[in-house]
Amino acid sequence: MIKRPLITAMVLSLSVVAGPAMANELMERASNTFEPIPKYPPVIDGNELTQAKVDLGKMLFFEPRLSSSHLISCNTCHNVGLGGDDELSVSIGHGWQKGPRNSPTVFNAVFNAAQFWDGRAADLAEQAKGPVQAGVEMSSTPARVEETLKSMPEYIARFEDAFPTQEAPVTFDNMAVAIEAYEATLITPDAPFDKFLRGNEGALNDKEQEGLALFMDRGCTACHSGMNLGGQSYWPFGLVSRPGGDILPEGDKGRFAITETASDEYVFRAAPLRNIELTAPYFHSGAVWSLEEAVSVMATAQLGTELKDGEVQSIVAFLKTLTGEVPEVRYPQLPPSTANTPRPVDMVP
Amino acid sequence: MIKRPLITAMVLSLSVVAGPAMANELMERASNTFEPIPKYPPVIDGNELTQAKVDLGKMLFFEPRLSSSHLISCNTCHNVGLGGDDELSVSIGHGWQKGPRNSPTVFNAVFNAAQFWDGRAADLAEQAKGPVQAGVEMSSTPARVEETLKSMPEYIARFEDAFPTQEAPVTFDNMAVAIEAYEATLITPDAPFDKFLRGNEGALNDKEQEGLALFMDRGCTACHSGMNLGGQSYWPFGLVSRPGGDILPEGDKGRFAITETASDEYVFRAAPLRNIELTAPYFHSGAVWSLEEAVSVMATAQLGTELKDGEVQSIVAFLKTLTGEVPEVRYPQLPPSTANTPRPVDMVP
Repeated sequence: MIKRPLITAMVLSLSVVAGPAMANELMERASNTFEPIPKYPPVIDGNELTQAKVDLGKMLFFEPRLSSSHLISCNTCHNVGLGGDDELSVSIGHGWQKGPRNSPTVFNAVFNAAQFWDGRAADLAEQAKGPVQAGVEMSSTPARVEETLKSMPEYIARFEDAFPTQEAPVTFDNMAVAIEAYEATLITPDAPFDKFLRGNEGALNDKEQEGLALFMDRGCTACHSGMNLGGQSYWPFGLVSRPGGDILPEGDKGRFAITETASDEYVFRAAPLRNIELTAPYFHSGAVWSLEEAVSVMATAQLGTELKDGEVQSIVAFLKTLTGEVPEVRYPQLPPSTANTPRPVDMVP
Repeated sequence: MIKRPLITAMVLSLSVVAGPAMANELMERASNTFEPIPKYPPVIDGNELTQAKVDLGKMLFFEPRLSSSHLISCNTCHNVGLGGDDELSVSIGHGWQKGPRNSPTVFNAVFNAAQFWDGRAADLAEQAKGPVQAGVEMSSTPARVEETLKSMPEYIARFEDAFPTQEAPVTFDNMAVAIEAYEATLITPDAPFDKFLRGNEGALNDKEQEGLALFMDRGCTACHSGMNLGGQSYWPFGLVSRPGGDILPEGDKGRFAITETASDEYVFRAAPLRNIELTAPYFHSGAVWSLEEAVSVMATAQLGTELKDGEVQSIVAFLKTLTGEVPEVRYPQLPPSTANTPRPVDMVP
């Protein structure tokens, strides 16, 4: 359940910016607003993270044969070596088609209240089924995925290990459940900001602390708070002042397409800001490449305020303290195709 | 320097197929023809495998920003999780264009006498420069690659560590040298066949030993011998009987395009057979998906002989003993783009 805070809750605080001498007070205020990334993956209701399931999920995450072309895997657009996304404005998929929105990072995605820019998937398992079937992404079907996985004895055995109580575990749904289990391990603890939240005031330097104070005082936290500094609530992009069509393309009305409610026009899930330094370009349109520009746009569009250059720099310095420790990923070995594996189909239908 | 054995050297041996009781004799004959994959990477003249260089090379191998689209890396077509290739007939590259030939495996490629199906690159460093610039593959340029790498401070530091005696080490050539260093570590020792060659006769069962004996007796070893069971010499595809255009497309005359010598029409480098179980589809055209069919085609086309079904099965059983231990690959973390990093260009020129 995603709460949508009332806009009135976003009244700008105009309190004095905290200086380094007030690090303790700043830490206390921050602790009331944010939460550190835990060291270990969270518990997911109904999806126990067994080693067998996580290992299978990792194979599937790197498995290009889930796409009909056999070229595109989850990792293509959610590259674990590139901050968990693809560093493109919008992703390139089947037949070199462009997706409609910027690919969000898989890192810490498990902590978002819902998935996709419009929150249309309740969890990562539901999310995982989307790109596999999307014509502009992996362009496959549940039947083709199941036929593919059943054609390789190693996958059958691994699904049996991962879902030991099920009679016929090689299913499209279980593919998604295993991918969710693996993605839940893709968390990035121990960012400097996490160390600060845990009591190490030296983890953030003066400028970063200034940026943090500004981030809270100017009201950024109305949308960007909690563990992921976002990913929890929906807001109109252009709450105060709508950006131009280069940043907010008119044709993509965001959550409106899901709810068909007028007030949801141009409403998107507030972006989670963890590892934001690694995930340019920014916004659902991927139109802005510089973090400085993204911060300025947000200030104008969402808060109706013009930040000074120095303020932008401080906030960016703070945002860069959100870069955590990326988990070690050992590349999985995938089983060879067999005579029964559907052959790649690379034509665009 | 690649030797091209005289065709007369390929006279078929019609000696009796060795049975299991003759394992020792078989082992001795095999040891005269083949060589095990070593446990450690080889020494490369002029390219010392320092840790700094290998680590840099790994980053570059996984670096999609070496392609102009920022989507395609070496690993896209030489996937370390898929036997070192892409399991496609021909690779898909920039703009979803198709390459002309099947992607060869990167595993043990360092042991080939030359690179590419036509041997046009003398070594892996020379090879690495090809796909980066090919319009149908990564579609970049040396200047763009250098600009990209120089835009990221971490790459500059890593090139300095990898090439400590050079003044300005961030070059396209050094990119290729580092990739070669990394690829030299992608070797797969300890296949059952290696254990057999090292004296463990139980490493191959009766059928596999029968296949090995057939492989030697029928003359396969004329082209497929040494450490990689191939990759050392050039031969016409269709030495005895030319396959149809579905397998040997008329338009691709192989080495003829390099040497412009009539006798090089349809001449290709004999494929290395290490990990062949993992690298379907087969031949430069990637037209044949089954290893059984590939063995039959070779027997007819190159040796002018029809193998019985049981013989094909035995040879395939032997070929599957060439699957080695894939090295552990820890996914590298790539530095974020900066304001100076050239933006992705995904249009086909």
